[in-house]
This record gives sequence, structure tokens and C-alpha cells, in this order.
Amino acid sequence: MEPRGSERKISEICSAVLARIQPTEEDRRKSREVINRLMAKLSEGLSRRGIEAEVRVEGSFAKDTWLAGENDLDLFVLLPEDSPRELFTEVLEVAQRLGGKRRLKYAEHPYLEIEFRGYRVEVVPCFRLRSPTELRSAVDRTPFHTQYVSRRLNDGLKREIRLLKRFMMGTGCYGSEFKVGGFSGYLCELLILHYGSFQGLVGRAASWKPGIIIDIEGVYADPSEVRLLFGDRPLVVVDPVDRSRNVAAAVSLQSFATFVLACRDFLKEPHEKFFFPNPARKISRRELSRLIERRGTGLFCITFKTPDVVEDVLYPQLRKTERTISAALAREGFEVLRSDVWSDGISVILLEVAHSCLPGLRMRVGPPITVSASNFIGRHLHSGKSWSGPYVNSEGRVVFEVEREKRRVGDVLRQLLDRREGFGKHVKEAVSEGYRVYEGKGVLRLCRYEGVATFLSEYLTRCLPWYR
Amino acid sequence: MEPRGSERKISEICSAVLARIQPTEEDRRKSREVINRLMAKLSEGLSRRGIEAEVRVEGSFAKDTWLAGENDLDLFVLLPEDSPRELFTEVLEVAQRLGGKRRLKYAEHPYLEIEFRGYRVEVVPCFRLRSPTELRSAVDRTPFHTQYVSRRLNDGLKREIRLLKRFMMGTGCYGSEFKVGGFSGYLCELLILHYGSFQGLVGRAASWKPGIIIDIEGVYADPSEVRLLFGDRPLVVVDPVDRSRNVAAAVSLQSFATFVLACRDFLKEPHEKFFFPNPARKISRRELSRLIERRGTGLFCITFKTPDVVEDVLYPQLRKTERTISAALAREGFEVLRSDVWSDGISVILLEVAHSCLPGLRMRVGPPITVSASNFIGRHLHSGKSWSGPYVNSEGRVVFEVEREKRRVGDVLRQLLDRREGFGKHVKEAVSEGYRVYEGKGVLRLCRYEGVATFLSEYLTRCLPWYR
Repeated sequence: MEPRGSERKISEICSAVLARIQPTEEDRRKSREVINRLMAKLSEGLSRRGIEAEVRVEGSFAKDTWLAGENDLDLFVLLPEDSPRELFTEVLEVAQRLGGKRRLKYAEHPYLEIEFRGYRVEVVPCFRLRSPTELRSAVDRTPFHTQYVSRRLNDGLKREIRLLKRFMMGTGCYGSEFKVGGFSGYLCELLILHYGSFQGLVGRAASWKPGIIIDIEGVYADPSEVRLLFGDRPLVVVDPVDRSRNVAAAVSLQSFATFVLACRDFLKEPHEKFFFPNPARKISRRELSRLIERRGTGLFCITFKTPDVVEDVLYPQLRKTERTISAALAREGFEVLRSDVWSDGISVILLEVAHSCLPGLRMRVGPPITVSASNFIGRHLHSGKSWSGPYVNSEGRVVFEVEREKRRVGDVLRQLLDRREGFGKHVKEAVSEGYRVYEGKGVLRLCRYEGVATFLSEYLTRCLPWYR
Repeated sequence: MEPRGSERKISEICSAVLARIQPTEEDRRKSREVINRLMAKLSEGLSRRGIEAEVRVEGSFAKDTWLAGENDLDLFVLLPEDSPRELFTEVLEVAQRLGGKRRLKYAEHPYLEIEFRGYRVEVVPCFRLRSPTELRSAVDRTPFHTQYVSRRLNDGLKREIRLLKRFMMGTGCYGSEFKVGGFSGYLCELLILHYGSFQGLVGRAASWKPGIIIDIEGVYADPSEVRLLFGDRPLVVVDPVDRSRNVAAAVSLQSFATFVLACRDFLKEPHEKFFFPNPARKISRRELSRLIERRGTGLFCITFKTPDVVEDVLYPQLRKTERTISAALAREGFEVLRSDVWSDGISVILLEVAHSCLPGLRMRVGPPITVSASNFIGRHLHSGKSWSGPYVNSEGRVVFEVEREKRRVGDVLRQLLDRREGFGKHVKEAVSEGYRVYEGKGVLRLCRYEGVATFLSEYLTRCLPWYR
């Protein structure tokens, strides 16, 4: 039981936060105007092309769960179920004429992003289905999500959802699923529907351990069945409109743990900074240089031109490439302390190792005594590169001490980048067209690219937002 | 099944080895002469002092399991069970007058080592007991061992024991129990009594896995009882004269695995070198310097004056100190590749680390999400030494990046040597009187001490003897 005082404090904070995030009448009027205008133009254009389609607002504007200042509008164009897929292209051609700054994007299928009067509008063609389990494209499920949530909401629940979304944003757990590995808007909505309120959720989540299963409609009788189906995820939230889908599939252990920690800390010392954290400190180039120097580690940035795909495609590939390179360095004996990726006009894979250079000697430890070591011994005995061994160590394993072939991270990196095995598809193509490797303070030369200075600042002073 | 040819080859090798290790008539005559002479003098001296005692040959000469060239004679002075312990001193005073180069030593109790006509004779006072389970001193069991083995031997078994002892010596598994963590003479005898022959043992041992239990007299009904009693040792051989004792207690996993590997290799390619390996290569100081340089590691030797205790007391203390220092270095973040000890006039603890200097940055990783991280966070948040954090890593743990206090091995070593916590008792005393730390090629200055050059050579070219 939280003390009464703390509960009152939380209520006060929530009220203050709501005052900042509830859309005003002016916000609503403006968004309605933009939506009506775009929908009318789009419908008109489509019917003029003879395309039978329904234009519909989806996402948080449709459900009235958007936050003041949030300007992401989703306009879906629902085509008859039996339409040919080629119709998508025609729909997007029509949308291209809506005006504003346009950008055609490709996730699992193409969509158009328009900047229009301060709103970022996504025009997404999809098929209108009878059932959400017979998808023709990945976005066909969205209208069912909108319908499921809208039917169950009231003004109170909308407030709670807005609080949770802002809490997720403030603590760094919210955002584009694949970039952050965080909690999506739909997931936030379901969590509130399930727990009834923001405080109800936070109280429970503070003692969450990885392996939480939330099955709102109670379609599975047995948790073991859920685990078998969805694997070893920290959080499983069964999609109420499609029982075969985990709405929280993208939630990484990192985001999960961050959210749990945030809930614990918030209950202990409630504060508005969990919703609106202090901005990250701006760091001068000179200070960055000092930070890098005192770390005394091996810092490396690999850069290449960013492939022309959407973030949801790009980031998983960057992360995959980052993991591949980290694993390869670890295999070569380097201790990888941390790594990260960043992308805008150029893409950056950052790697930090404890030592850029390893000893000439490398220990090769053979199998345990329960297994034959003959192959291991034979291989090293005749390699011509063994300095000592075979001998037996205190764990009873055969050891050879051999000459290390690659002592420098730089050499290993260049070899990996020339082979490009285990890289994401588009990243692989981009790297094959050229890459650069920056080392140590040399990475500061990348500050000429907008955003990299911020990326490096945040990397070097990384901190949970509510501890800033 | 080994092919016939291989079995014949093994027999031929065993015959050749036996020809070298079976004592000749001349060997026997000479040892008898020395034994008779010493026993007579000792008995006479004791009775002249009015000490009622029986002088008896123990060990491998008593059992006729000694090898030609092995010159370690054990003379036990058995005192009546109810004698005062002070009588030991009187016995040793008498033994001091036997002539030869004498050295008084202290294991669990004092004994005298005499060099006499090429023999190393140990004069050991002990109590004559009715039962080996009611010991008054650690050596009181020995006469019972001698009796147990002698009664069961015949000429055939003696040959097999000699072969096994020589095999253990040749493969580096034999020797002073506490120095090598190897197989004692008595253990070799029991193994042959149990398996019937050298080849029988080798055939079985080739597929040994750690956890072997040999209970010759079958006093335990259940292996789990044995494990409970003797713990998780690679080899348990229940002492037939004292069921509460594991004769193989000193056998380390390293010696165990070495022996198993030797058996496998011997069966695959039988050769006399398993009994008489090639001598280790002599390495010039210039070459040592080259070997150290190309390893590119951090090599350190700590030296101090050797405490005046017997090897069985000294080596466990040196090993303990070595482990304490290695563990402390690992705790500070250093990767300890190998370590070793050596002792003669001075004692040396050698430590080799991958890097002598660590980065300024140190990762402090907190508990898993299932446990509260508040203490961890609180401690680092207010330490004034954290550079970044708290943040959550991909394993869902809270991380701080802090300033490393001790970056250099040398500094950590000097601090450990000044505190001397977790050192062996006599080593601690010796170190408190002074120590030195040699680093890198500086360790070569220790070659002025006889034996250190050999120690370093063997360390740097370490190899199982039969692979030389």
C-alpha cells in the first residue's frame, strides 16, 4: 500500500501532466480541418480515377488518444478485398497530388508520407477484410485495432491512455517499434484497457519480471501454450483481434526493464519529470574530445550512405549488422563494451572496445576431458603457429598458446566490412558501395553531419531520462 | 578392442622400460647396506638415550616398489602409543648424529632429512597405533599402508606398480602430493591392486571422466554416500585402512585430466617417451627475451625470501597466495591468462595478464530486473565517480560507467602485497619482510637465481612431456 500522501501527489502530477497533453479545442479544430480537407481531396481524386475505396482516419486521431503536439496523422485507403495489389500504386499516385512535401516510403508495402500544415500525414493503402486473421498486407489489421479500442473507450480511459503514452515517451520506452524496441500506441491502449488506469498499471508493472503474459480476451487456457507460441519474450500481449499475434513482440528486454524501473522509481518519488524529462545536456566538441580521451577505450565509427528504406526496415538491419560485428569482434578476443547505431543522411555503427590492440599471444582452450581432444591437438600441433602447448589447465582442458593473427580492431573491422557476411540486405549493398572507419577522437570529424554530435553526446553521457 | 599389433608393441615397450627401472642386485645390495647401517646406528642411539622405540623402513623400499635411481628412503621411528609428543624432539636429536648433511623440517610435525651416501633419508618419528583410524599424528597411518600393500603384492604386481609409477613420472602426474597435486606412490600401488595390471588400468583410465570412485574393500554401498563424504573430487580412492580418507584427495583436475590424456595417447601410439620423455629444451636468455616480447602480454614476478618450511607446507601456501592474487586481479578487471609459482632460495609468484593497463572507464553492471537496483543506483549516483548512467543494457540490467581507480597491474599488486590478505601464513610473514615486483623483460634479471631460468623456460614453452 502506498501512503495516502504519495497517492495524492501522484494524482496532482497526473492532473498537471494532463493539462499539458490533453488536446485543446483549438488543437481539435485544427486537426479536424486538416483531416477533412485531406480526406475530401483524396476521396475526390480517387473517385475521379474510378477507384472504389474508402478513406478513413486510423491511429490515435481516430481513437481520440493523441497527445497535444503529436502531429502524426494516419489516413488509410481501404480497397475492396479482391482488388489487385497494383491498385496500391494508383492510390499513391493520387495521394501524390495532395500537395505538401511528399516522400514515398517502403515498409512491407509502399506508403506516402506528406508534410502538411505542420502535420506528418501517412497515406496508407490497404485491403478491407472481413476478418483480421486473413491478412493480405501487414497494415490490413489496423482498422480492426481502431475498431476494437474505440468501442471500449470512454473519456476517463482516454485520459489514462494519454498519461501512459506520455510516461512511455518521457522514460524513453515509446516510439517506432523497430527503432526503439519499445511500446507502441496500440500496446499502451490495450494495457490501459486491461489494467483500467495508469496508476493501476504502474502499481503492477513495478513488480513485473520478464515473462509477463496478458491475454485480455482470455483466449488461451494455459500460459505454457502462450509461451510455446510466442517464445521467450519479456512481455506477451495477445492481440484481441488476432490471437496469433503478440502486440508486444517488439518490446525488448531493455525497454521492458526500463519501463519496470521507471514504474518503481515513479512510485517511490513521483515527479513530472517522468513525463517531461529535462533535456539532454548539450556538449561542446571540445568536451566530447575530453570525454573520449578519459574513457581510454577503443572507439570506432563505421559510416556509409544510408540506404533508401523506411526506418522500420533500416533499423532492424542496422541492429543486425551491429550484432554481427560485435559478435565477430568478441570471437576474435576483443571485449566489446558497448555499441550503438545512428542514421540520417549517413548511417553510423559505433563500436567501443576495451582494448584496440590485443596481445600477440592467444589462448586456445580445447574441449573438456569428457570429450576427445585429438582433433584439437592435431590441428594446433601441425599449424606451425603454436608457441606452447599442449598442456592441461586447472579446469582439465587442453590448451595451446598460439600466435594471434589479428591484433588490431581496425584490421578485423576492415575484413568484416569487406566480406559483409551477416549484414542486413540493404546495409550490405550500401557498405559495398563504400564505407569509412573513424577511430578514437577521429570520430569527432563526423560532427560535420547534423545530428552526429547529439548522437555522440548522448552515447558518452547516456542516462535514463528521469535521472537527468 | 586394441589391435593385436598395438598390444604387442605395448608389451615390448613395458619390457624395455622395466629393464631400466627394476633395481639391479647391485642397487638392492647398496640400499640394504645403507638401510642396515642407518637403522643400526639409530636403534643404538635411541636405546642409549633410553627411548623405547622400533625403527622401521617404510615407503617404497619396505614394499619393494621403488625404482632404480630413486633414492628416497623413509625411516620411521615408532614410539609407544602413550608416549608424550615431546619424545619426537629427542628422537630427532638422536637422528641428528647419524652424520651426512642434515636438515630439520616441519610438516604437520617435525622430521629430519639426511643426505647419506647419495640417498635422501627421512627420519620420521610417529606413534605405533592399534588402529589407523585413531591417529595421533598424520604419519601414523603410514605403517598400516605399508602393511596393507605388502601383504597383497607379488613380483608381478610389483613390476606393474613400477611401470605405473614411471608412467606417472614421465607424464608429469607423479610427485610430492601438494606441490604437483598428483598421484602418490601409495595411490599408484592401490590402483594396480585394484585393476590388476598397468595395461588394465591404462585401458580403463583412457575413458575416465571426473567423478571416478574406487572403493577397493567395498565399504560403501552407495556412490552418493562417497560423494557426500569426499566432495566433488575428480578421483576418490577410499583408503582401505581408513574408510574416512580419500587417498586421491590431492589429485587435482589438472593431474587427473593429464593422466587420462596420457593414457589415451599412449594407447593410440605407444612409446617409451611416456615413461622417459625428452628433456625440456634449454633456452638462452636472449631467446627468453624474444619469447616474452612476442607474447605482448603483461608478465609479472613477485619475489620474496622463501619461508623455512617443508614443501608440503610451502606449496599449498604459495598456491593459495597465487589464487588470492589472481582472483583480486580478475575482480579489478584484469584478464589473468596464466600464473605459476616457483621456490628455492627465493620464492616466485608469476602472473601473466592480457593487458597491464586497463581503460579509464569501468562498466558497473547492476542486478537483474528481478531484483531491486535502488541500492546499486544510489551508491553510484552519489559516488561522484560515475561518468554516465544509470542506463539499462540489452540484458535488462542497470549500468553505470565509472572512473576506474586502478588502471595498472603494478599498482594493484603493490596494494595487495602491502595488505597481504588471504596469503598463506608463512608466505605472509615472508612478504612482510620484503618483496620485489619484476615486470616484462625485467623478470629476466631473476635468472641470476639458479633454477629461475629453467622455470621461465618451462613456463614460456609449457608442453606435456610426451609432446616434447
